[in-house]
Amino acid sequence: MRIAVIGAGALGLYYGALLQKAGHDVRFLLRRDFDAVAQRGLTVTSPRGDFHLERVQGFREPAAMGPVDLVLVGLKAFANHRLVELVAPLMQRETAVLTLQNGLGNEELLARAFGAERVMGGIAFLCSNRGAPGVVHHLDQGRVRLGEFRAGSSRRAEDLAALFRRADIPCEAVADLRKARWEKLVWNIPFNGLCALTGQTTDRLLAHPATRLQVHAMMQEVIAAGNAQNLTSPIDGSFAEKMIAITEGMGSYRPSMMIDRREKRPLELEAIYAIPLRQGAERQAPMDRVGLLYALLQLQEPA
Amino acid sequence: MRIAVIGAGALGLYYGALLQKAGHDVRFLLRRDFDAVAQRGLTVTSPRGDFHLERVQGFREPAAMGPVDLVLVGLKAFANHRLVELVAPLMQRETAVLTLQNGLGNEELLARAFGAERVMGGIAFLCSNRGAPGVVHHLDQGRVRLGEFRAGSSRRAEDLAALFRRADIPCEAVADLRKARWEKLVWNIPFNGLCALTGQTTDRLLAHPATRLQVHAMMQEVIAAGNAQNLTSPIDGSFAEKMIAITEGMGSYRPSMMIDRREKRPLELEAIYAIPLRQGAERQAPMDRVGLLYALLQLQEPA
Repeated sequence: MRIAVIGAGALGLYYGALLQKAGHDVRFLLRRDFDAVAQRGLTVTSPRGDFHLERVQGFREPAAMGPVDLVLVGLKAFANHRLVELVAPLMQRETAVLTLQNGLGNEELLARAFGAERVMGGIAFLCSNRGAPGVVHHLDQGRVRLGEFRAGSSRRAEDLAALFRRADIPCEAVADLRKARWEKLVWNIPFNGLCALTGQTTDRLLAHPATRLQVHAMMQEVIAAGNAQNLTSPIDGSFAEKMIAITEGMGSYRPSMMIDRREKRPLELEAIYAIPLRQGAERQAPMDRVGLLYALLQLQEPA
Repeated sequence: MRIAVIGAGALGLYYGALLQKAGHDVRFLLRRDFDAVAQRGLTVTSPRGDFHLERVQGFREPAAMGPVDLVLVGLKAFANHRLVELVAPLMQRETAVLTLQNGLGNEELLARAFGAERVMGGIAFLCSNRGAPGVVHHLDQGRVRLGEFRAGSSRRAEDLAALFRRADIPCEAVADLRKARWEKLVWNIPFNGLCALTGQTTDRLLAHPATRLQVHAMMQEVIAAGNAQNLTSPIDGSFAEKMIAITEGMGSYRPSMMIDRREKRPLELEAIYAIPLRQGAERQAPMDRVGLLYALLQLQEPA
C-alpha cells in the first residue's frame, strides 16, 4: 500500500517506519528531519528491538508525494489550521485519510473538506519521543484502535487494522470511533492538563491523595459527558479505576502536553478541552472541574 | 481598655497601633519586631496619614502581658496549633477574645478551649503589608465586621464596634457572624487560591475571560455552600458580581496567600479550603471547582 505520513513527529515517524519495514511504500512529509533522513535514513530505538531504515522517501511538499492509497495524519492538533492544505494534494479518487491525532474535531475537519466517507480516525496508545534528527525513540505501548468517522464497522477498517497488525502494530477496528475517542479523553483530560499545569509526572499526581481523588472525579465528569453523546454503549464508571491502574503501571510518565508546555510549544487545548467541554455542555453534562483546568491552562498560553 | 494583640503581623500591628493611638492600653506579642519596636517604637504608613508611636509595649511571652480585657488574634491560621497556648495566659475572668483570622474554624478552636461565651470573631477587609521591623504599611481598606460566635446581636459586640470606630477603624457589629465569614470566603476562596497557584494578580485573572468565568463559578459554589449552613438569611447570588466589581477597583492586587506562596511560607489551606469544603459536603453542597483548586494548592505545599 502507498501511504503518506503527514505530521512526522514521534508518532508519525514511528508508525510510518513500522509500515515501511513491513514492505509498504511509505512517504514522509518532513521538515526538521528532512536532511538527516535524506543522508542517513531513519532510526527507531525500541524495547522491542531497534531498527534502521537506510532509504526513506522524504518530501518537503505534499504536492510531490501523491498519489497514495492512505494518508496517515499525525499532526499536532494545534497545527490543524494547516491540515486541509497539507492533505488536499494527496486526496486522489480512492484515497482514505486516517487521523491518529489527539482529541475531538479532527475527523470533522477532514470530513468537511474531503467528504465523510473518506475519513477514518484512530486512537494511538503510544509512548514515543523524537530524538536527534532522523531518530525516534519508542518507549512503550503502541496499540491503535481505528474506525470509520461515519460509525459502524467496515471492511476498510478491518482490512487496515489487519495491515497494521502485520506491520507489528497492535491494532483493532472499532465500530464506534466516538466512544473510543471519549475513552481516550478519560485519560487525556485529567493527566495531560494536570501534568502540564503543575509540572508533575503522572505518578506524583496519583501518589498525592487529594490530586488522585481529583483525577478520578475528572474522569467521572468525562465519562458522564461522553455517555451523553449517544454512544452505541455507555462507558462504564469503572473505566476510571482501570485507567488509574494502567497509569500506575506507567511509572513516572510525562504526557506530551507536559513536554509541550515545558518546551514552550502551544498545547492541544482545542481538541482535548474546548471541543469536549462544548459537547458536554450541549448535552447537559457540564464538566466543572475540567472547565477550571482548561481555564488555568489557557491563562498561561501565549496570546 | 487593655488589649493584647496576639499575632502581630501586618493586621495585628495595624489595628493595635490605631487602638493605642486612640488611647487604649495595647500590648503586643512580638517576635520578629521585638527589638526594633523596643528601640524605635512602631511606625504606620498609610494613605490616610502616617503616624509613629514612640512607646509601645512589646512582649516576648504571653504570660507577662496580662490581665487584659480583650485579646485580639491576628495569627495566621496555619499557626493555629499554637493558638490556645498563646491565648490561655491572657484569659482572666472577664476577658473576651476576638479573632480576626481568615477562614473557618478559628472561633470553634477558641470556644472549645475557653468557652463559647468568651469568643467573638471579626472579618477584616484590610490591605496591609509588613515593612522593615517596626514598620507596617497600610495600603487600602481596613473595615471590620465583628460579631458573637454564639450568634445574635450583643451589647458587647456593639460596644466593641463603637470602640473600633472611635479608633478610626470602620467597623460594624453583625448578628450573623457565620454569614459574614461565608461572605468573606466568596472572595477569599477563588482569589487567594488562584493567585497563589498561578502567580497572577487579581486583575490578570479578571482580564482573562476564561478565568473570570471560573472565578464567578467558584463564587457561586461558595454562595451555595454557605447558604446550605442555615444562615439567618441567604447570601444573594448577585453578591458574586458585587465582589468582582470591587476587585476590579483594587487594581493589580496580590492576596496574602499569593505572597505567602511566593515567599515559601505555608498557606492557610485548612481555614480557607478544607473546613469550608467539609461543611459544604456535609450539607449536600459540594464545591467541585474549589475542591480541585484545593488539591492543586496542596500538591505544591511542603510535606
